[in-house]
Amino acid sequence: MPKRHTLSVALIGTKFMGRAHSNAWRQALRFFDLPANIRMATICGRDRAGTRRAAKILGWEKAATDWKAILADPLIDIVDICTPNDSHAEMATAAARARKAILCEKPLARNVAEAQRMVDAVKRARVANMVCHNYRRVPAVALAKQIIDAGEIGDRVYHFRARYAQDWIADENFPLVWRLQSKVAGSGALGDIGAHIIDLARFLVGEIAGISAVSQTFVKKRLTKNRQLARVDVDDAVSVIGRFRNGAILNLEATRFAPGRKNQLTFEINGSRGSLAFDLEDMNRLHFYNANDPEQARGFREIVVTQSNHPYVGNWWPPGHIIGYEHSFVHTIADFVKAVATHKRIQPDFASGLKTQRVLDVVQHARALSSL
Amino acid sequence: MPKRHTLSVALIGTKFMGRAHSNAWRQALRFFDLPANIRMATICGRDRAGTRRAAKILGWEKAATDWKAILADPLIDIVDICTPNDSHAEMATAAARARKAILCEKPLARNVAEAQRMVDAVKRARVANMVCHNYRRVPAVALAKQIIDAGEIGDRVYHFRARYAQDWIADENFPLVWRLQSKVAGSGALGDIGAHIIDLARFLVGEIAGISAVSQTFVKKRLTKNRQLARVDVDDAVSVIGRFRNGAILNLEATRFAPGRKNQLTFEINGSRGSLAFDLEDMNRLHFYNANDPEQARGFREIVVTQSNHPYVGNWWPPGHIIGYEHSFVHTIADFVKAVATHKRIQPDFASGLKTQRVLDVVQHARALSSL
Amino acid sequence: MPKRHTLSVALIGTKFMGRAHSNAWRQALRFFDLPANIRMATICGRDRAGTRRAAKILGWEKAATDWKAILADPLIDIVDICTPNDSHAEMATAAARARKAILCEKPLARNVAEAQRMVDAVKRARVANMVCHNYRRVPAVALAKQIIDAGEIGDRVYHFRARYAQDWIADENFPLVWRLQSKVAGSGALGDIGAHIIDLARFLVGEIAGISAVSQTFVKKRLTKNRQLARVDVDDAVSVIGRFRNGAILNLEATRFAPGRKNQLTFEINGSRGSLAFDLEDMNRLHFYNANDPEQARGFREIVVTQSNHPYVGNWWPPGHIIGYEHSFVHTIADFVKAVATHKRIQPDFASGLKTQRVLDVVQHARALSSL
Amino acid sequence: MPKRHTLSVALIGTKFMGRAHSNAWRQALRFFDLPANIRMATICGRDRAGTRRAAKILGWEKAATDWKAILADPLIDIVDICTPNDSHAEMATAAARARKAILCEKPLARNVAEAQRMVDAVKRARVANMVCHNYRRVPAVALAKQIIDAGEIGDRVYHFRARYAQDWIADENFPLVWRLQSKVAGSGALGDIGAHIIDLARFLVGEIAGISAVSQTFVKKRLTKNRQLARVDVDDAVSVIGRFRNGAILNLEATRFAPGRKNQLTFEINGSRGSLAFDLEDMNRLHFYNANDPEQARGFREIVVTQSNHPYVGNWWPPGHIIGYEHSFVHTIADFVKAVATHKRIQPDFASGLKTQRVLDVVQHARALSSL
Repeated sequence: MPKRHTLSVALIGTKFMGRAHSNAWRQALRFFDLPANIRMATICGRDRAGTRRAAKILGWEKAATDWKAILADPLIDIVDICTPNDSHAEMATAAARARKAILCEKPLARNVAEAQRMVDAVKRARVANMVCHNYRRVPAVALAKQIIDAGEIGDRVYHFRARYAQDWIADENFPLVWRLQSKVAGSGALGDIGAHIIDLARFLVGEIAGISAVSQTFVKKRLTKNRQLARVDVDDAVSVIGRFRNGAILNLEATRFAPGRKNQLTFEINGSRGSLAFDLEDMNRLHFYNANDPEQARGFREIVVTQSNHPYVGNWWPPGHIIGYEHSFVHTIADFVKAVATHKRIQPDFASGLKTQRVLDVVQHARALSSL
Repeated sequence: MPKRHTLSVALIGTKFMGRAHSNAWRQALRFFDLPANIRMATICGRDRAGTRRAAKILGWEKAATDWKAILADPLIDIVDICTPNDSHAEMATAAARARKAILCEKPLARNVAEAQRMVDAVKRARVANMVCHNYRRVPAVALAKQIIDAGEIGDRVYHFRARYAQDWIADENFPLVWRLQSKVAGSGALGDIGAHIIDLARFLVGEIAGISAVSQTFVKKRLTKNRQLARVDVDDAVSVIGRFRNGAILNLEATRFAPGRKNQLTFEINGSRGSLAFDLEDMNRLHFYNANDPEQARGFREIVVTQSNHPYVGNWWPPGHIIGYEHSFVHTIADFVKAVATHKRIQPDFASGLKTQRVLDVVQHARALSSL
Repeated sequence: MPKRHTLSVALIGTKFMGRAHSNAWRQALRFFDLPANIRMATICGRDRAGTRRAAKILGWEKAATDWKAILADPLIDIVDICTPNDSHAEMATAAARARKAILCEKPLARNVAEAQRMVDAVKRARVANMVCHNYRRVPAVALAKQIIDAGEIGDRVYHFRARYAQDWIADENFPLVWRLQSKVAGSGALGDIGAHIIDLARFLVGEIAGISAVSQTFVKKRLTKNRQLARVDVDDAVSVIGRFRNGAILNLEATRFAPGRKNQLTFEINGSRGSLAFDLEDMNRLHFYNANDPEQARGFREIVVTQSNHPYVGNWWPPGHIIGYEHSFVHTIADFVKAVATHKRIQPDFASGLKTQRVLDVVQHARALSSL
Repeated sequence: MPKRHTLSVALIGTKFMGRAHSNAWRQALRFFDLPANIRMATICGRDRAGTRRAAKILGWEKAATDWKAILADPLIDIVDICTPNDSHAEMATAAARARKAILCEKPLARNVAEAQRMVDAVKRARVANMVCHNYRRVPAVALAKQIIDAGEIGDRVYHFRARYAQDWIADENFPLVWRLQSKVAGSGALGDIGAHIIDLARFLVGEIAGISAVSQTFVKKRLTKNRQLARVDVDDAVSVIGRFRNGAILNLEATRFAPGRKNQLTFEINGSRGSLAFDLEDMNRLHFYNANDPEQARGFREIVVTQSNHPYVGNWWPPGHIIGYEHSFVHTIADFVKAVATHKRIQPDFASGLKTQRVLDVVQHARALSSL
């Protein structure tokens, strides 16, 4: 066995995504045979004590508070950006200039202009780059892609419909966090969770030709940390219809106002010879209808996606032993490490993230309903 | 027990809806205690032999081929219109002039102009009138309405989304039947099945303020009975977003191109304190999430809607003994008979059907997507 | 069309089963093309007024209170026994002597001795005879049988497990009805609902070689109609394990003490190349796992058993339009009428009912647990 | 923060359970706030090269091949036994003598005699001891226990039924691995997976009073590694009925011959006021029927067990972000570390494992069916 070289990683962000990515950096080599070692060098946050605690708990060698210093460190190979959306553009363009490989949380940016600058920066610097749309690497989703590519739902797609529904701000008393502020988040449910299903639409079906959308802010004022009542200036929910370039119809919904739906990303694809359906709250299953089955015995197959020949999942446990949310990050980071180590391209890259951002921007500004 | 008077019924149409309504006329008195007897007097169809056979099998005293003669018969109290959409307006206005109570299959008409004439006719004649949106009287749907009206999902509705998906013409070799011809059907999936979910949206949430839509004809030419290739000039599928007057967001989809979905009408309603979900292929269940349940034990309740205190269903069998599609017609006709016999108003009446028709018309002509 | 002869039917019993059978006699000719007409001649009950009312509502020409007079009527061809279990033997043997074709509700009798006399009587008289195990003719169950017979779950069966669970007497205040009295019912959950799953076990897998059982009466005293506290002398629940002659393992449970299970008859069969699963509360579906599917795409198929080529169901409505509990009786009676009219044998006959009764008797007396 | 002391762990076994436990030892401190640090000192296996590789991949400081040397190492605090069943007794009794805290994989032993010696040893040595029945610490199972203990399904339990079904040896060509050999495994499906549901029965309902069982070896000969055909001398499947001391009825099934069931551990508990149901293949959900809900709105609640106030799961991700199989080991080991560090008792201990072993032994020898 030739000695593997080692990739040193710095992660910026210590909250939800910081924890999820840290876990993935720790676990990737335990379960996947990668062409490089991973050194978890530095985690960076704004709060010194909190970041130090995070470094210890999450497994990083060092804690830092100045992200620019990280970029100046020649020993760092990869920068993983897990901060709120308003810092993505600045950090990623700087990281590109510093010749770091970059993994950036979604949505890529707050708007198309920012996203375009990021794409330009990584192209110019020729650095590896990826947006973390981790759901592409849920085994059931990856299997759906394989089934579609193999033509098993037919040569035409008629429908893609997805819904990402949560309920964590349906309560009017929930406070005004950064995800509800336009200047930090860019948009609300749209960019936070809608971006995921737009990415899946593009991944599974193709590019989108045109859309129409309706959005709504149901709770217009909320309390800030300082107990001030302030305006919510992002969408609470958005509904989108449209058309793909290949003629399929698109129907999307993103909402945080669906009581009982905790993290329910569902999609259904109907093709000329079959259909696929998925639910993230039941993420180890894929539902597959094959119109080529004998007529008497046709029905949606509930595939428990835990067999050794299913994507990614064979690296974990025996069949039927299910995996969870965090594993999608491990798969994403394992693939990213492979790509960086072998100088291969990987999807979704920033250019792909820009395409998703274009859809987000059009959705955000499309508001023409025909009155009744 | 005072002697009940008898209502004599004539039904026009011998095909799918003719069979379903005949069954309901036969069964209503067997399972519901009604204020009038029902006499199944005449069934009317275009084909003499076929109509005679239908009369015998379906339980009608007489077979007729001239629907105008029926209207002239003073012994007929109720006319039940189960013909293709292009004859609804003419038959219903004539029946109104003849002072018959009228039950008319959905969609009420091919367009708003026809529907308006029908409303004018029944108002002028002051006759009982109803559009057969039978799904309002599926026990689980009626229970959903009770739960909403009792405020159990909160005082605000955020989302109504419904999908009516079938797959019977996904096969390109399926012939060009009347439901695929604009001049007979008015529209395709939209009027045929979309009308049902628009009616449910209005029934469960309220009137619609504005919409945007996309529709598609996936298979543009099909073979006629005479083996000629002819153009399909109705929609194969339609996707709609919009806003209700009360601020809720609307999302609808109607398609006959969803392989594996045989007759799947699903809806979900999200309110400020709870949610409801339904699937017509599993129509004896209602899913109800109550945000007022103790936090540890919250979850969608799968209510098997077969208890004696659930709407309609107590008249059939003991708890857990499920009912089927046809029962929704029995409930509709039982309620209609009650209304006619007691001179009460009943919903959805033609005026309600006209409101649904307005939505259908706007959907059919709303076509402005923002390009990407 | 040659003139069909007519079969005249007398039904004994006006309660739950009387209503269900009456509906089936009324509906059979409406939906099935039968070789004979059906004349609903007489319904017989103990209470004169109630029986008269039943005759009117349920569609019988005459009401009678003396079941022996019915047997004496030479115009009656078929006797349908829907009374409590303690009268089955007497009525059926008398009906056989009177040369009537006999349909008898399950369980065939209170014990093997009675069942044996009934078998002897119908053999001697050579009359058509059938036990009404209606669940054999639920389309999904009939399809399961076809799939097994076609070898699609392999050439060996490993497991049959079934559970029939209800909750209607879980409430301690539920009164002491006839179904809870040994001298009328013979046994409790065992004969009432356990008989159904024993019949299905024999229908789908084969004859049973040996069993072991445990049963329990959870609520030992209940109030009679006269508000007297009296002993419950039948089982509230029974659990059975055993072996089929073909080597498969049997596991059965019948209980009326499962809160939330209203009428849940579930079964699962595991064969060497596949599995089947069914739930009566969701009776329009059959779950089928085929180990011969491509490995990546294996999963339980949820077959919506409503296609025109599925057993029975094509006679009702288009695909996806589900049917209910009562339809299983229509199918049973349609098949019985065909058998009677064409002098063919039909299953399950009394001899089959006797075999089921033998299992019931052994279960009732098998009580040897190994202590811990 | 006072300095936490550190517990040093040695793990014996490098295969499936070795990997699962290693992951848990690595992850416990990342997600749970524990009173001691964990030092992953030594992993021990029979194959030197393989164990070295395992140490590196799984995160252990040292690789060893002599388990007795580990016990002699005074720096080791905890011994975690993940070897085949035939070595449990010898290793655990030696570890007890060496005063190590012991975590032992299930089943505790091959038979009661061995299990009794193990209990005697840990009692004598007064060392912390636990059998790894990890499913007790699946959040949904732990929540079920809380609901039962709070009396929410009533004060009486009527039924506990569980089934553990897999299909990995349904294929006749699957080789004769150690789990199919009596002298190594003790029993087949019974000890391997049946032990889990017996433990859950005892955990959730109470001690078992008596049982009856049937078992079967469906494929009687299989190929060894050396391509010799040899006899399978353990059960392929077992079905058990019985009675708990509290009067509830028990029904269990364990099988590896259920095509399509990959790792399906299901249970249902019916109490006097409610029911609970669970499926390990869908392990983030608990189904709860509460008979105290308003009658119209009763139904099994599908609780997505991912809320912050649900057991264990709040330490991972936000609501709706599901966890997987391996997490049950993290919870088990986190609790074990807490118990060891704080000198508290923990369940299930070896004494509890012995009780489960008694049931296993009686099942294995109970074979009296009543013939038909």
